[in-house]
Amino acid sequence: MRDYVEIGVGREARRTYSLEDISIVPSRRTRSSKDVDTTWNIDAYTFDIPVMSHPTDALASPEFVIEMYRQGGLGVINAEGLWGRHADLDAAVDRVISAVTEGDAFDGGAAAIAALQELHSAPIDDDLLAERIGEVRASGATVAVRVSPQRARELAPKVIQAGAELLVIQGTMISAEHVAEGGEPLNLKEFIGSLEVPVIAGGVADYTTALHLMRTGAAGVIVGGGPNTNQLALGIEVPMATAIADVAAARREYLDETGGRYVHIIADGEIENSGDVAKAIACGADAVMLGTPLATATEAAGRGTFWPAVAAHPRFPRGIVQDLRSLLDDTATLETVLNGPSTDPFGYQNIVGGLRRAMAKCGYTDLKSFQKVGLAVNL
Amino acid sequence: MRDYVEIGVGREARRTYSLEDISIVPSRRTRSSKDVDTTWNIDAYTFDIPVMSHPTDALASPEFVIEMYRQGGLGVINAEGLWGRHADLDAAVDRVISAVTEGDAFDGGAAAIAALQELHSAPIDDDLLAERIGEVRASGATVAVRVSPQRARELAPKVIQAGAELLVIQGTMISAEHVAEGGEPLNLKEFIGSLEVPVIAGGVADYTTALHLMRTGAAGVIVGGGPNTNQLALGIEVPMATAIADVAAARREYLDETGGRYVHIIADGEIENSGDVAKAIACGADAVMLGTPLATATEAAGRGTFWPAVAAHPRFPRGIVQDLRSLLDDTATLETVLNGPSTDPFGYQNIVGGLRRAMAKCGYTDLKSFQKVGLAVNL
Amino acid sequence: MRDYVEIGVGREARRTYSLEDISIVPSRRTRSSKDVDTTWNIDAYTFDIPVMSHPTDALASPEFVIEMYRQGGLGVINAEGLWGRHADLDAAVDRVISAVTEGDAFDGGAAAIAALQELHSAPIDDDLLAERIGEVRASGATVAVRVSPQRARELAPKVIQAGAELLVIQGTMISAEHVAEGGEPLNLKEFIGSLEVPVIAGGVADYTTALHLMRTGAAGVIVGGGPNTNQLALGIEVPMATAIADVAAARREYLDETGGRYVHIIADGEIENSGDVAKAIACGADAVMLGTPLATATEAAGRGTFWPAVAAHPRFPRGIVQDLRSLLDDTATLETVLNGPSTDPFGYQNIVGGLRRAMAKCGYTDLKSFQKVGLAVNL
Amino acid sequence: MRDYVEIGVGREARRTYSLEDISIVPSRRTRSSKDVDTTWNIDAYTFDIPVMSHPTDALASPEFVIEMYRQGGLGVINAEGLWGRHADLDAAVDRVISAVTEGDAFDGGAAAIAALQELHSAPIDDDLLAERIGEVRASGATVAVRVSPQRARELAPKVIQAGAELLVIQGTMISAEHVAEGGEPLNLKEFIGSLEVPVIAGGVADYTTALHLMRTGAAGVIVGGGPNTNQLALGIEVPMATAIADVAAARREYLDETGGRYVHIIADGEIENSGDVAKAIACGADAVMLGTPLATATEAAGRGTFWPAVAAHPRFPRGIVQDLRSLLDDTATLETVLNGPSTDPFGYQNIVGGLRRAMAKCGYTDLKSFQKVGLAVNL
Repeated sequence: MRDYVEIGVGREARRTYSLEDISIVPSRRTRSSKDVDTTWNIDAYTFDIPVMSHPTDALASPEFVIEMYRQGGLGVINAEGLWGRHADLDAAVDRVISAVTEGDAFDGGAAAIAALQELHSAPIDDDLLAERIGEVRASGATVAVRVSPQRARELAPKVIQAGAELLVIQGTMISAEHVAEGGEPLNLKEFIGSLEVPVIAGGVADYTTALHLMRTGAAGVIVGGGPNTNQLALGIEVPMATAIADVAAARREYLDETGGRYVHIIADGEIENSGDVAKAIACGADAVMLGTPLATATEAAGRGTFWPAVAAHPRFPRGIVQDLRSLLDDTATLETVLNGPSTDPFGYQNIVGGLRRAMAKCGYTDLKSFQKVGLAVNL
Repeated sequence: MRDYVEIGVGREARRTYSLEDISIVPSRRTRSSKDVDTTWNIDAYTFDIPVMSHPTDALASPEFVIEMYRQGGLGVINAEGLWGRHADLDAAVDRVISAVTEGDAFDGGAAAIAALQELHSAPIDDDLLAERIGEVRASGATVAVRVSPQRARELAPKVIQAGAELLVIQGTMISAEHVAEGGEPLNLKEFIGSLEVPVIAGGVADYTTALHLMRTGAAGVIVGGGPNTNQLALGIEVPMATAIADVAAARREYLDETGGRYVHIIADGEIENSGDVAKAIACGADAVMLGTPLATATEAAGRGTFWPAVAAHPRFPRGIVQDLRSLLDDTATLETVLNGPSTDPFGYQNIVGGLRRAMAKCGYTDLKSFQKVGLAVNL
Repeated sequence: MRDYVEIGVGREARRTYSLEDISIVPSRRTRSSKDVDTTWNIDAYTFDIPVMSHPTDALASPEFVIEMYRQGGLGVINAEGLWGRHADLDAAVDRVISAVTEGDAFDGGAAAIAALQELHSAPIDDDLLAERIGEVRASGATVAVRVSPQRARELAPKVIQAGAELLVIQGTMISAEHVAEGGEPLNLKEFIGSLEVPVIAGGVADYTTALHLMRTGAAGVIVGGGPNTNQLALGIEVPMATAIADVAAARREYLDETGGRYVHIIADGEIENSGDVAKAIACGADAVMLGTPLATATEAAGRGTFWPAVAAHPRFPRGIVQDLRSLLDDTATLETVLNGPSTDPFGYQNIVGGLRRAMAKCGYTDLKSFQKVGLAVNL
Repeated sequence: MRDYVEIGVGREARRTYSLEDISIVPSRRTRSSKDVDTTWNIDAYTFDIPVMSHPTDALASPEFVIEMYRQGGLGVINAEGLWGRHADLDAAVDRVISAVTEGDAFDGGAAAIAALQELHSAPIDDDLLAERIGEVRASGATVAVRVSPQRARELAPKVIQAGAELLVIQGTMISAEHVAEGGEPLNLKEFIGSLEVPVIAGGVADYTTALHLMRTGAAGVIVGGGPNTNQLALGIEVPMATAIADVAAARREYLDETGGRYVHIIADGEIENSGDVAKAIACGADAVMLGTPLATATEAAGRGTFWPAVAAHPRFPRGIVQDLRSLLDDTATLETVLNGPSTDPFGYQNIVGGLRRAMAKCGYTDLKSFQKVGLAVNL
């Protein structure tokens, strides 16, 4: 069924596809985009638009998370970022921004990465983190907090106590059970079973790992390694069209196994504009996690500088610190970027408006049925 | 029969091809280009060259439309553009041109798009529009006018009354029946049946939609989303070689269904030079709709600035405003661009001369039989 | 046998390959490059290296043609170029060179093309042409002269009378019989049969046309449309790996038909360095026709400016005038370019030395057997 | 089994893949990178990291070779380079460096190649070479020395006498038996049998040549033509993913033939960062030979200028002299480049750390089993 090629005598490789390789094919009666419904329901929560923000301090200030909620989406806080490590959060973010070399980020932002590494060597102050999470909760916004698999056991209870309503357990690539010699592996199934809030976990990139992750009881699974993450430094790549479709197949298997438990798929990678959002959903995603597309919004903490959490790794950073400030536009509020109107013809603004029009041109009015739209590949 | 790949477990995508992916293969006795006949007959009209202009105010001034007729082709007027909205048409076009930022249009012409959006927010003055259409009709030129599917019912009777001899019903992607909740869908079959002029409708990109559109009684079907239109912002792409060939297959089906009613195929997308024109016809088109290739002609209203009608959309513009002024050449009249002679080796000038030579090298002397020429793909 | 894809419903295209798509695969015992023999025998003529120059005034001054012979190859004179049209040949070439715009030839050299068009509107002075051909013949060099199929009947007798020992009948794409209404077609078979010198004819790009051309009695067939020729302006492309292999297959058929008449294949297109020469021969060519690779030699008439003959077409030029002067190097004599030694690691110099080493690494010592070397394609 | 395409009628070419075309696919439980073991055992020698340096004077000063040993790898000395030809080694290297033109090495470093050619025209002083090899041996570092197949018989006894513990017999492409008319071919089997030190030989690129080379008794086989080597000038390319996998298949055959003699595979080409190292091992390599990745280390002799040995060929240089000085960073010691920690997100530093993480993400803890990890190709 899967398509394999022989790269050398007796050694096979599977053919995979990125979102860039595919496109959506309309073949039904067109609809009005006003009739399109982009509501996303996960567990007890309902969002007007199927959009989460990537958990990074380059996006999430308290103001940003609250505005994400106002725009109908879900902002995610990184529990292991700067929120709990530095009393003056703005100053900490400013230090990263000012370390970005001007012009082309030829070196991936080495100086800014060094700043991130140093800023992340400070310990997490639980009270400070809890206070900031509480501030967001107090606004009425839905609160989602990300922890890494390595520190999930330690931090999850604290952030839930502080007000987290959704827990995101996210590393660039995770598995249902992480093995370490001489230590106790994190068994996600037991761990998730012990929590009182729904969990979204990932990233994953293949059928088997995704199926195992679904069996842990997660409400959602993240597909992909995140934006600006250079998996190529490991020789690993996650072509998103294939990865999303594979995980959607794992969901069909899991639905059958469980007699109907539906796990949400959130795509986190290769998504730069409204067309990519439409393609990710067409491949089988229920929602998307956006990084760089939100980085130029006036409410983003990094004000045009973007990095994913992995950029702060002390020995082998894989996230790139990217300078997008030349794209900044005073009028590009989060509202403009997500819901428009706009003057941008490339789908970088009014991202959800683009999704609506894509669905309407193809004759679909809800996200779930749009997962069946026809696809094409170009060569 | 169609070629599918599995992009992920259980999810297929069709392999598609753009004009750039293919080339024409000569394999017969060569002919003289003087013996080639490029006449295009549609309904009661005969054109020396199989060329329409894309309906945009960036091309169509009254003078441009009249000169298109003199050169043997068909200029198309956009009824929903600036002709009926602004008494001083030149001033309105000038405002767009002067909003184009110099140098590379990195932002897709955001400032010019903003100008277009504002200029299009003015209402259509029916008398003004009728007067200008009448002016072209009075010159003796064949008059073709474009309306959108949304406003076809309202505007078509008026433009026909004003002198339109061919009606073009065109959106980036249309279907034979557009569905909107709480409104009455436009049933093209009934609508076209009620008109006394031949209709050319589109764009379409697939077999099924094209077949439905042929059944509405249209004299011609437009394939593709137009020039400078960024369908990628929707995740939708229309690789033209596949789209034209698919619609040509729908025509064969429809010819069989009707016992011989021939619907013309007009290609509108990916066409930048004479080679693209030849390829579009080789794939099955009877004629082409040209946008950017005509934009640098001295008679074009935009004088080197080009945009398609969709660039003026109030919330989600998809057309790009492109600055081609650096390519302007005083001697590049519409005659030079279409019929030559020229000093340009890339096929941007003497476009029909290039088509003639392509047909002659392949041993064909008329457009219809050239649709059977051999094709190749490069990887 | 041939590999076809369906580009749209019911419309097929053949998969083709350019030289860039393929590479040579060594799999035998290595040999010493000193043991490699690159002798090329065609009709009664023997050349140390399998290299002709493309017939253009950008290369062929009398001095250039004589030096080609000294280096072991064959320089070709264009009978319809400037040699017979202008008494002061240097001044004519200089006018083209000085019309080349500095920097990037963004417009394909439109001003230089205009100069070429005007210079070629002068009539051919038969005596002047004969005198110059005689000058080369007097030097002892082998004399090859190119005429177009259109003027072959008129010019061939004159150039043979003047001293041409090999006649090259060459257009970008030719067929064995060119059909023109109201005129008499050139029947190459009868024409070649009437001549007393061997004929090399082309370009061709496919099996059928090549087989017909072989049946005319030509000693050699040219594959490809020449260097710097923009066939894309016609939608026609000649991916050289496929074209050469197809013509080599036609030769096998013709060898069988005739019980052993061997027609030489000369590749003229996509050849920029020594690696391309090796690949062309590996695909089945016996020799190559070089254009741009020779243009930077100090002996080339254009001294770094290059154009093929088709650049001078009065209505639809397809050759590009290219400015290679920035690559000029005082020490790059024709000897350095063809036979080395050199300090260039890219195979632009010591081109035949590169061919020798390629053959030696693969364990072959003569050109004919090297046509069987293993090939690979990269994706 | 192997995948062939027909490039023209009756002419086939094999589909091949480079490291860039493939990626690694995780599908097991993740592990901790601390549990990964990268030990490489070859013959009696054990290395902490599976890394050799490419034998070039651009890397190997005595200090560099000693530091390679300290970092757990193996530095290789080029017996036919500058060590034995110039008493003042630093001055000789400096002459090459100072001949590098600033900015983009558009000409492949022609001036530096000319300097290399002249520097290599000096004879090898056996005593000088022996003295320098002895100096490294005295430090306690493992000593590996490279000779060419052409001069192996003459130089091997001398360098072994001087202290070489591993002999590397390396040309860009070699075979088990090199044939030269009128001379005696080097029979590697007899030659290797006569030596008392283990031999690593290459490069090879195909199954057959590799199998023959294994049968000579070599302890290791080098796959590929080396870094910065322009095989394209010969029309030959070695897509490394296919080449490594083919040679690994030859090893399986040879293991069966011999009842278990294991020949090591060292990949030398296309390796620029940690991801490429991981991919090379995933394809079947046991270790890698690094060139450019080590060139910017502060200990490298060329201090940011890199060339392979073949750049010094007197008539047809194929190695490119590359100026990487703009990438130099004072803190990038060999330790940083190989073992980290680093601030570089692209895998150019902490190369072995990247390999460890790749293996850990895929659930493997030793190099041999990682050769079975899943692979993917992107289109």
